[in-house]
Amino acid sequence: MKTAGVLGATGSVGQRFILLLADHPDFELKVLGASPRSAGKKYVDAVNWKQTDLLPESAKDIVVVECKAEEFKDCDVVFSGLDADYAGPIEKEFMEAGLAVISNAKNYRREEDVPLVVPIVNPEHLDIVAQKKKQNPKAGFIICISNCSTAGLVAPLKPLVEKYGPIDALTTTTLQAISGAGFSPGVPGIDILDNIIPYIGGEEDKMEWETKKILGKLSPDNSTVELISEDDLKVSAQCNRVAVSDGHTECISFRFKNRNVPSVEELKKTLSDYVCDAYKLGCHSAPKQTIHVLEQNDRPQPRLDRNRDNGYGVSVGRVRADPVLDFKMVVLSHNTIIGAAGSGILIAEILLAKNLI
Amino acid sequence: MKTAGVLGATGSVGQRFILLLADHPDFELKVLGASPRSAGKKYVDAVNWKQTDLLPESAKDIVVVECKAEEFKDCDVVFSGLDADYAGPIEKEFMEAGLAVISNAKNYRREEDVPLVVPIVNPEHLDIVAQKKKQNPKAGFIICISNCSTAGLVAPLKPLVEKYGPIDALTTTTLQAISGAGFSPGVPGIDILDNIIPYIGGEEDKMEWETKKILGKLSPDNSTVELISEDDLKVSAQCNRVAVSDGHTECISFRFKNRNVPSVEELKKTLSDYVCDAYKLGCHSAPKQTIHVLEQNDRPQPRLDRNRDNGYGVSVGRVRADPVLDFKMVVLSHNTIIGAAGSGILIAEILLAKNLI
Amino acid sequence: MKTAGVLGATGSVGQRFILLLADHPDFELKVLGASPRSAGKKYVDAVNWKQTDLLPESAKDIVVVECKAEEFKDCDVVFSGLDADYAGPIEKEFMEAGLAVISNAKNYRREEDVPLVVPIVNPEHLDIVAQKKKQNPKAGFIICISNCSTAGLVAPLKPLVEKYGPIDALTTTTLQAISGAGFSPGVPGIDILDNIIPYIGGEEDKMEWETKKILGKLSPDNSTVELISEDDLKVSAQCNRVAVSDGHTECISFRFKNRNVPSVEELKKTLSDYVCDAYKLGCHSAPKQTIHVLEQNDRPQPRLDRNRDNGYGVSVGRVRADPVLDFKMVVLSHNTIIGAAGSGILIAEILLAKNLI
Amino acid sequence: MKTAGVLGATGSVGQRFILLLADHPDFELKVLGASPRSAGKKYVDAVNWKQTDLLPESAKDIVVVECKAEEFKDCDVVFSGLDADYAGPIEKEFMEAGLAVISNAKNYRREEDVPLVVPIVNPEHLDIVAQKKKQNPKAGFIICISNCSTAGLVAPLKPLVEKYGPIDALTTTTLQAISGAGFSPGVPGIDILDNIIPYIGGEEDKMEWETKKILGKLSPDNSTVELISEDDLKVSAQCNRVAVSDGHTECISFRFKNRNVPSVEELKKTLSDYVCDAYKLGCHSAPKQTIHVLEQNDRPQPRLDRNRDNGYGVSVGRVRADPVLDFKMVVLSHNTIIGAAGSGILIAEILLAKNLI
Repeated sequence: MKTAGVLGATGSVGQRFILLLADHPDFELKVLGASPRSAGKKYVDAVNWKQTDLLPESAKDIVVVECKAEEFKDCDVVFSGLDADYAGPIEKEFMEAGLAVISNAKNYRREEDVPLVVPIVNPEHLDIVAQKKKQNPKAGFIICISNCSTAGLVAPLKPLVEKYGPIDALTTTTLQAISGAGFSPGVPGIDILDNIIPYIGGEEDKMEWETKKILGKLSPDNSTVELISEDDLKVSAQCNRVAVSDGHTECISFRFKNRNVPSVEELKKTLSDYVCDAYKLGCHSAPKQTIHVLEQNDRPQPRLDRNRDNGYGVSVGRVRADPVLDFKMVVLSHNTIIGAAGSGILIAEILLAKNLI
Repeated sequence: MKTAGVLGATGSVGQRFILLLADHPDFELKVLGASPRSAGKKYVDAVNWKQTDLLPESAKDIVVVECKAEEFKDCDVVFSGLDADYAGPIEKEFMEAGLAVISNAKNYRREEDVPLVVPIVNPEHLDIVAQKKKQNPKAGFIICISNCSTAGLVAPLKPLVEKYGPIDALTTTTLQAISGAGFSPGVPGIDILDNIIPYIGGEEDKMEWETKKILGKLSPDNSTVELISEDDLKVSAQCNRVAVSDGHTECISFRFKNRNVPSVEELKKTLSDYVCDAYKLGCHSAPKQTIHVLEQNDRPQPRLDRNRDNGYGVSVGRVRADPVLDFKMVVLSHNTIIGAAGSGILIAEILLAKNLI
Repeated sequence: MKTAGVLGATGSVGQRFILLLADHPDFELKVLGASPRSAGKKYVDAVNWKQTDLLPESAKDIVVVECKAEEFKDCDVVFSGLDADYAGPIEKEFMEAGLAVISNAKNYRREEDVPLVVPIVNPEHLDIVAQKKKQNPKAGFIICISNCSTAGLVAPLKPLVEKYGPIDALTTTTLQAISGAGFSPGVPGIDILDNIIPYIGGEEDKMEWETKKILGKLSPDNSTVELISEDDLKVSAQCNRVAVSDGHTECISFRFKNRNVPSVEELKKTLSDYVCDAYKLGCHSAPKQTIHVLEQNDRPQPRLDRNRDNGYGVSVGRVRADPVLDFKMVVLSHNTIIGAAGSGILIAEILLAKNLI
Repeated sequence: MKTAGVLGATGSVGQRFILLLADHPDFELKVLGASPRSAGKKYVDAVNWKQTDLLPESAKDIVVVECKAEEFKDCDVVFSGLDADYAGPIEKEFMEAGLAVISNAKNYRREEDVPLVVPIVNPEHLDIVAQKKKQNPKAGFIICISNCSTAGLVAPLKPLVEKYGPIDALTTTTLQAISGAGFSPGVPGIDILDNIIPYIGGEEDKMEWETKKILGKLSPDNSTVELISEDDLKVSAQCNRVAVSDGHTECISFRFKNRNVPSVEELKKTLSDYVCDAYKLGCHSAPKQTIHVLEQNDRPQPRLDRNRDNGYGVSVGRVRADPVLDFKMVVLSHNTIIGAAGSGILIAEILLAKNLI
């Protein structure tokens, strides 16, 4: 049993970490960090709990501490749900104190020696950590969870690229859930009722950039990730916020570099057959079926399909030829599970399976 | 004052026709046709009125008749909101009886001698009617209103193609309102609350095909429309139903054939400067501003922008370069106005201005 | 292990029965009945599955039969999710064939020898069945599940009446979820988006009548239920449909006959302390906490509280004095669990615990 | 043409005042006051406009000033949309400077010499102002607009009390729109999607208290309003926030003191026949039909009925006998028109018609 801490424990992502750690077979939640305003209070008194599952009994009485490395020194792993405004120096301090930090914040995603990981997609990027540990077993490190909409996008692409070679053009139009915006205040009700907001600040840029890192390769010495160049992969994202609580839907289309293009049926089989490494490693939360290929015309739908494999599985539907690029399809992923906190938990399970924590 | 009739008067589109004809300066609504079940009743007793505006007093006491040409023989123009299941033979009978039919049904859209018209886009296709009338002044005719989501798509493309030459690749992902599905029963509430349906039967095919007709040219003798070929224009549509009452949002991207591509600012100016012919002709319902180019990042939004120019204006936002094609942008159009019944009314106004009814 | 069948298996309530019976420790689902149109097909092919949980593997391959008693003769218990249009003769045939029928339909609710049961409220009414079985061990019977909104209303009233004596005036205004309307087509999306429907056909009458039966007493010989008279209990219901998927909220107020009225704190304690008989009997689905008394001002909320005790627990909040009657409070119950199919399952568990099936 | 100013011009209520004053025949909007942060900017640059109607051209270029009486000294009437946190001292300063203030804030509603007015209900309370002006023609004054949900509640009660005598018990359960909560941030989307919030801070108390003032009588010298006592009128409110943009629905029931109770038909006729004084005075915004009595079972509905008489008319449906009190019915009112800013405009029109400004 490893000891776990959570940074930003009262926030939206922090609450999800706490839910996912309750009754976890590998991790025991012991330390909760939040703002000085919350520090010193029992968690149940500090938090405005807004999850559809009840606050776990085991977390209620934990006394919240400030986000200082000293307070977390006994943690084998620290999950950070901190806002980007605060995450920078805090996570750095934790890493320098030798702690293992798995962060949902964007601050370090673009550092070339920080793995940006979707655990069902590119766990091999965690070899950067293995390499670091080889040099200094006591070294702390930061691993970044990808942006939520990026996670859904790259999940089905990985097995396709492995089998059919590089994709050189990729478009995605997203219909994103409001839970991704947190809740202080998140998306105002009056903005989302009978409405769409065709803009999410920074999101398109994140998707276009992160895809190139997550699908990139490690450097020969395993010390950094090499970004796919703009010449090799063009990505275009259009992001919308819609009246859905959980579950990001994406309408994507893409073209392979190799013009010997597979058939739709081959494509679907490749997606269905994909088994993510985390599952092979026996990780507790890993989806049995990584990619669910749905055959009904009108699926996937967020309300009906977002919880497949407890939100760790990604659903794909309407796979068909695209008149402009090669293929188009609809992808649905659970934005707070595989797109955020859940991803962090599964990354920790992989680290554990690889003896990196 | 011209005399108008409405077919399918109790349905969703029929109700909209009736609203738009109330107090219209050019048309007086005199005949309402519906199913035999409704025939013989006063309209107010036959209809399950579901519009946000009240049933016009002037229509309440009109006694509904069956959809037979004989009943409409005094009409200068007949607007058809019939379901595709019924529209075929009825509209044909009306045309053969010498009546002018403007139809929202899909049945005759693909006939090469039937104009498929978005009135703010391709009123020149009505020259087919002029040509027909020249040969036989008493000839009846059918004009088809385009599919709702096609209307929003082609509106901003028209001025761009006029100025910068053909577009050869075009993608659109739609977020469509539920009013487009009518209400018997239309989209079930349980399917759309906290959900998206990533499929609308037949819609993608309609968009991909209709775009090629609407942007096509007349034959030299003005007797038919020539479809743009698949080689010259590739269109890819992905259609979704979302929890919005009125207003279709589309995230589109496109590439010009001519590689001497304009700047974003030039593009926006061309869109803003576009004045549709209907407005120049002085048509009552024509939008003063055909294309509203919005500068705020998070616009257009259905709730805030769908009623611009009474729903006859189309809004465009977030015009920007696209990494895969040339440009991408968000288009919003009012699906029951410029995308359906309103389009029919404006077509009739153009016919009137051109002395074709 | 008892053998179970489901009538109306493809409908909304039938689907819920099937979900709740999957992996049930006491019942094995063996027979699925539906319309002749579905009969002969595998269930997976006959159903348009619309639940947020996936169709259980164990049900997929069951071949659907017609709703004839002969087909269900090996069932120890039959759960009926039939529409009222069909339930009457079918359920009667089943009962006469000696089968145990637990029905969600309204058809037999008002028969004085048919128990109308909310299992966390009045399981003692099942003594009618015990009495019947004593006279004829092979006798079939029908037990009716109450209307969904009635279930939420009477749940907190039962412990109060037990402790403080009769309630003589009771008002409830409901905000009901759309899942209660089924889905063929159920509530149209255009009627519920940005809207309320202040009317549910027959619902107010059901609530006002059923409350008087459920809170009524058995006749001395346990053969019938004696309705509370209109003089002894006045009930007024106002029912609304709102944009909520699952979970009926009710704002209730009530007055005790006994004018020695308890304090708010006493009332809350009585509610919290209530342990339903089904839990004492060790029934698998019985809620550990029957009534959750929530202290936060803004609770219960459907999205956050409907799943307490897997939907078998009822939540109560904002208990306070009422200027007009004695007390007012907000009650939330899961309409498809304790208000429909789930209620049926728990009734069967009670029957089993009492050796009545 | 009278000169008008608006306080709190950038807020939700302020924006509505500005919309309603655009093209008003009696008032010319000249001064806009907001926080020091906005002062000095053009209105179009200071405001985050969130209305479904476009920002009026005439308001765009007005330079915003601070909320100081000196800046508004040329205004014949000042409409205040200030938050309660700021309204107290500012409105007092304005009144003392001799200005006529019509305020949507709650701060002075409970002052006995401040009229609390729903203009279609109790314009006679404005006689307090007439009395004040008689004593000092240059005296400033404050008039308070009622709480939004109170407005809908008292509208149908007024004609009933006038005709059948006092009501002594009254209950209301509200289903309130989110626009009433403003938008900085107002109700978070995640709290209202697929959800209800059964609590609105302070609202129930406001409804219970304000009703007793609005239905109260003036003192013999017209200097104050006399509150109806708790003994004479018991009011119980239960307030809920629901997923509706505009339009408060209330399920009310009430009992007359006089036990010679009218029939349902008489009641409906009295409601239909009611013509508010503002309409008799010829006020521009006064509803032609003050109370719309709807006969369809499922009406009023917010989406379909909120805009009757431009939002100044109130709709009543489902009038029927109540088993507990005498009658129950559903009331719908437009919360931002007759429940807030619109009410202020109509009060000003009445003041003008009575030569009080």
